[in-house]
Amino acid sequence: MSESALGQRRFAPDRLIEFASAALMAVKVPESDAQLTAESLVSANLRGVDTHGITRLPIYVHRLQQGLVNASPNVRVISDKTTTVVIEGDAGLGQVVCDLAMTETINHAREHGLCWTGVRNSTHNGTQAYWALRGSRAGLLTFAFTNGEAIVAPWGGRERFLSTNPVCVAVPTDPPDELVLDMATSQVAGGHILLAKSQGESIPEGWVIDKEGNSTTDPDGYFDGGSILPLGGYKGAGLSLIVDVLAGILSGGASTVDVGSMYWDLDRPQDVGHAFLAIDVERLIPLATFKSRVAATLAGMRAVDRRPGVDCIYAPGDIERDAENDRRSNGCPLTRDLIRDLGNLAEGLNVPMPKPIDTER
Amino acid sequence: MSESALGQRRFAPDRLIEFASAALMAVKVPESDAQLTAESLVSANLRGVDTHGITRLPIYVHRLQQGLVNASPNVRVISDKTTTVVIEGDAGLGQVVCDLAMTETINHAREHGLCWTGVRNSTHNGTQAYWALRGSRAGLLTFAFTNGEAIVAPWGGRERFLSTNPVCVAVPTDPPDELVLDMATSQVAGGHILLAKSQGESIPEGWVIDKEGNSTTDPDGYFDGGSILPLGGYKGAGLSLIVDVLAGILSGGASTVDVGSMYWDLDRPQDVGHAFLAIDVERLIPLATFKSRVAATLAGMRAVDRRPGVDCIYAPGDIERDAENDRRSNGCPLTRDLIRDLGNLAEGLNVPMPKPIDTER
Repeated sequence: MSESALGQRRFAPDRLIEFASAALMAVKVPESDAQLTAESLVSANLRGVDTHGITRLPIYVHRLQQGLVNASPNVRVISDKTTTVVIEGDAGLGQVVCDLAMTETINHAREHGLCWTGVRNSTHNGTQAYWALRGSRAGLLTFAFTNGEAIVAPWGGRERFLSTNPVCVAVPTDPPDELVLDMATSQVAGGHILLAKSQGESIPEGWVIDKEGNSTTDPDGYFDGGSILPLGGYKGAGLSLIVDVLAGILSGGASTVDVGSMYWDLDRPQDVGHAFLAIDVERLIPLATFKSRVAATLAGMRAVDRRPGVDCIYAPGDIERDAENDRRSNGCPLTRDLIRDLGNLAEGLNVPMPKPIDTER
Repeated sequence: MSESALGQRRFAPDRLIEFASAALMAVKVPESDAQLTAESLVSANLRGVDTHGITRLPIYVHRLQQGLVNASPNVRVISDKTTTVVIEGDAGLGQVVCDLAMTETINHAREHGLCWTGVRNSTHNGTQAYWALRGSRAGLLTFAFTNGEAIVAPWGGRERFLSTNPVCVAVPTDPPDELVLDMATSQVAGGHILLAKSQGESIPEGWVIDKEGNSTTDPDGYFDGGSILPLGGYKGAGLSLIVDVLAGILSGGASTVDVGSMYWDLDRPQDVGHAFLAIDVERLIPLATFKSRVAATLAGMRAVDRRPGVDCIYAPGDIERDAENDRRSNGCPLTRDLIRDLGNLAEGLNVPMPKPIDTER
């Protein structure tokens, strides 16, 4: 369907950032923290990852209003042993927490070659690519991991135990390349199931099981006590478990079923855990040589002969870069439902809702 | 089918190690290197990973005889910057190269908290779990990556460009747990397709495509210029590319189509790259606390309600541990074809072939 048939309208990214920032400030988030968080969310929209974009603003605001997210957290380093850092997030906005975490990670990796940073007591932090790209743009090969609420069944199970626990790796490159992999270790992220439900559509076989453990194509099979399936069976379940060990247990934070849900647990903080690793490429191989070889590899991959019906082979990050080029020029499309939700939020907080920049068709 | 119907016989693991070691020494591998390599291969058989076990011995011997693997390599550290190490493998047996690499990785991580080791100009090194478990048993959370010859198509492609590039992570635990994930980033490892072909069986839809890019269930569709598909589509392709960047490019070794095939490129060394990362858990959280939380998480995962028809939920490493318990007591089963190949090898090298320990049925 076309954007207009879906009721989508396009908004200037800078206006969305201003709006999100104003909304967060309206619930007592300091200006610089609000700006950072708004920029992180809209960055996801710019890169085409709408499930992690400004659609999260209403729940962020709600949790701040309820005191479940701390608007003025004491985010701090609680352990610094040259190559390893542990950060206490004090239930602050994940973006505020991760801003300090990535600053520490980058500075330590530059000085010591490597840094592993564990983060405890954080909350939803947007896309992992947003954080890993900070490192890669500084010449550091950067990993980002986070855990989240249990919505994925282990392989063979029919209960929610794991989260979509993403693996993200960003690799230093020169423009126009930007090699970043940011993938859920589940078959699908929860946002896609919600989208199908809101549009009255069925979902593909293999995404979810119902509460009895049977495969279903009905989104409600998931929402009524079902689970998302891990990516590729036992492999994705194993990866998801490892990500939770890295982000949750190694950081000294919550893991698996103890991590709170942003949407459903409205009586307690989330206690999300993150982990970051940065490697100073230059210590192993000259950065220019490294980038040149990565560029040649990406070019080689895109030039591989294609399967019937395939128009283009994409390297990780290509689709997001193309989306960003489009959306910086033409604005970010938001769905009718989201525009309504943001309008309600604007009204409730008494902040001005931005106007679409496209002509209604 | 039962083992006997498949013509399988069981062999004492110690006898297999003695045999493999003698075979390697017969082609001029020093005794300690031969012993290490033999032990690594049979360790895979013990853990039930027969595709990476003693089945590789004939090609190891052949490549040593041809001078494509260096029997007396000058394996050495060429860069040591406290947290990062680069190892030159000098085309030695991968096990000999990785023995030094893991020793350096463990020692550096103990001293500095973290260590990333890149390895260039190596060869096939067995299972990655074998190396990562060395680290985890020393209290270090350990990652192992390797690249290999191009046999996997990128997502949407119909040419071999990537390898099965595994991701392996081993997590410190106390017995009987042993949490280790060692997974190819492709739908399947090449050995399973070879096995199907040798038994005249078809393979499941979704494993491979033929040279035209069409899905096929005929193993020959793969062997005749086809490709293995990446795990779960674009995600596995992205992971595979990242592993090659980490193991190949960051180490300064070969990557993608430039890595030689152990079986097919009989005119040049492989130039395989590896990478290892070890994290000293104790720097972030007390090791005993960490192990106790991991144990509780594994217990929780195994106790999840099961889907219809599922007998048991396994954590990564459980199946391999169970196999090892069985095979240490009852011997390692080898197929009829492999017993014949090893018999021919024994005869050619004039080393005694071990006898099976089970009674033929």
